[in-house]
Amino acid sequence: MSDPTYDMVAIGNALVDVLAHSSEEFIADQDEKNGMKKGTMCLIDETRAVELYAEMEAGIEMSGGSAGNTMAGFASFGGNGAYIGKVADDQLGEVYRHDMKAQGVIHDTTPLAVGAPTGRCLVLVTPDGQRTMNTFLGASVELGTVDIDADLIGSAKITYLEGYLYDREQAKEAFKKAAQLAHDAGHRVALTLSDPFCVDRHRADFLDLVEHHVDILFANEDEIISLYEAETFEQAAKLVAGKCEIAAITRSEKGSVIISGDEFIEIPAQQAEVVDTTGAGDQYAAGFLYGFTQGMDLRTCGTLGTLAATEVIGHMGPRPEIKYADLIEKAQAA
Amino acid sequence: MSDPTYDMVAIGNALVDVLAHSSEEFIADQDEKNGMKKGTMCLIDETRAVELYAEMEAGIEMSGGSAGNTMAGFASFGGNGAYIGKVADDQLGEVYRHDMKAQGVIHDTTPLAVGAPTGRCLVLVTPDGQRTMNTFLGASVELGTVDIDADLIGSAKITYLEGYLYDREQAKEAFKKAAQLAHDAGHRVALTLSDPFCVDRHRADFLDLVEHHVDILFANEDEIISLYEAETFEQAAKLVAGKCEIAAITRSEKGSVIISGDEFIEIPAQQAEVVDTTGAGDQYAAGFLYGFTQGMDLRTCGTLGTLAATEVIGHMGPRPEIKYADLIEKAQAA
Repeated sequence: MSDPTYDMVAIGNALVDVLAHSSEEFIADQDEKNGMKKGTMCLIDETRAVELYAEMEAGIEMSGGSAGNTMAGFASFGGNGAYIGKVADDQLGEVYRHDMKAQGVIHDTTPLAVGAPTGRCLVLVTPDGQRTMNTFLGASVELGTVDIDADLIGSAKITYLEGYLYDREQAKEAFKKAAQLAHDAGHRVALTLSDPFCVDRHRADFLDLVEHHVDILFANEDEIISLYEAETFEQAAKLVAGKCEIAAITRSEKGSVIISGDEFIEIPAQQAEVVDTTGAGDQYAAGFLYGFTQGMDLRTCGTLGTLAATEVIGHMGPRPEIKYADLIEKAQAA
Repeated sequence: MSDPTYDMVAIGNALVDVLAHSSEEFIADQDEKNGMKKGTMCLIDETRAVELYAEMEAGIEMSGGSAGNTMAGFASFGGNGAYIGKVADDQLGEVYRHDMKAQGVIHDTTPLAVGAPTGRCLVLVTPDGQRTMNTFLGASVELGTVDIDADLIGSAKITYLEGYLYDREQAKEAFKKAAQLAHDAGHRVALTLSDPFCVDRHRADFLDLVEHHVDILFANEDEIISLYEAETFEQAAKLVAGKCEIAAITRSEKGSVIISGDEFIEIPAQQAEVVDTTGAGDQYAAGFLYGFTQGMDLRTCGTLGTLAATEVIGHMGPRPEIKYADLIEKAQAA
């Protein structure tokens, strides 16, 4: 087996984020009418997307999508690699592909020529900085096994997958194919659980994945508790220990915990002014995985993740506004 | 003559901004190759827009356009009114129209069905917060006299026009028609000079406009010096005095000066961390004109403009991230 050419390939739903400020009352009203749950992601169809957009405040458009954000952050640290995700052949798709390439990320997934437009995520940011996401998947659901480039996966140290892919059958098959290819090549598979409701929807599948197919797991406290239907974080943490090589669990202002074998490494949170939490988990994974692919110790990996997450919650949008490579020295000194 | 229904109608090139960070070296290199001048706006064609975009870093998309930004800020203060500007019937055009309506601004200009896409402004933001703008006008140039709604103009206290409209013959005719309609109705015409290079291109026209057709003039120091081909700001300020009812001249960290008859009112700048100067002049005009339409004294008008400009330079993008109505109390207490 030759040395991998790439540090990482990330696979996910390619979505353009539309971020707008929102009052607490608006979310409460939407919860009552449409079951919108603050701080989580829900899937919506195109009709509902048009309707909700019409009610939203003026927005900012930025490339998003969980694994896409992680790949962009990973590249900002200096990691090299590729992204697999499907946009349409339209203006928002062009924006998405531009932003990936501008970060130095290979993104050669064939855009969808006919059918749904590029998917988008309508993100409502409340005054406390929390984001509530409403995703119209659009073209992103057309990602299929045909888009999974075996050579690319085979040549990357890590294949990173988002749990959201499990929401559609075709993308789920693509996910499974990619994980298989990565392991066949002797490389690692990383997974983010994405969202507690996503975990609810796919608990049995995700438990099986974590135990048998995933090497590095990312989750936040709510997601890992949901996965094991645990009462407390401590319970859930004990349950995940040993199930995969590494589990990195983020706990907002309580920092994060890295579980590797019987080792529990606690990483403190950094002081931060929270403007918009969109992308916090994604950028934690970016920092962690960058450190990991460069052979750094787990504590430094976790610190890199924390620094990246702290940067991204300080401004609107899910991707870096600074070069994350500048954080490396800071993490190594910590 | 009945009381005007609207506070203001703004007319300009409807553009979506694509904001990206840029190094000083990139601008210097572009200056050498393509004559890009830091801190100014230059017009580019579609081919060049595609080429430049490919070289830019990952971006943020937001509705922009000088007069559009002013109208959005004006509405954020609580002013009511309309915007006239042309987008195409495409995704970016949809974004633009959404953002106007979301601010409570009437924007009924018929989108261009066939031909150029929605115009965009590629904005390069250097580490010092300065923005260098490259505008592909796209559909916005198709604005013509047919789009100038006589009833709307006739029913607004102020018709606000951007100098950039003079860059295309058809838009210039639309500009002239709107100014005539406003005066025929006994209402005021406001103009922003837009950019020193724009002033260079249309000096004779602008001198005539200021002397004979404009009631309220907005310019920054460079623009007013360029207009009168003066040596110093003081010279230019003396030359503009009395040419129109009010001239409001912004001077960055030196604050602004309001010239009304033989009165010179100096408004100090506010302390600010500069992230991105895009929209500073536009939001100064928004604050000033909001105060003016509400019958506030000129010093308070200038302070409102300063507070809005200070807000907008503290973040990426040319439009408010807060409700400007919250600034009114602060200005009145100043």
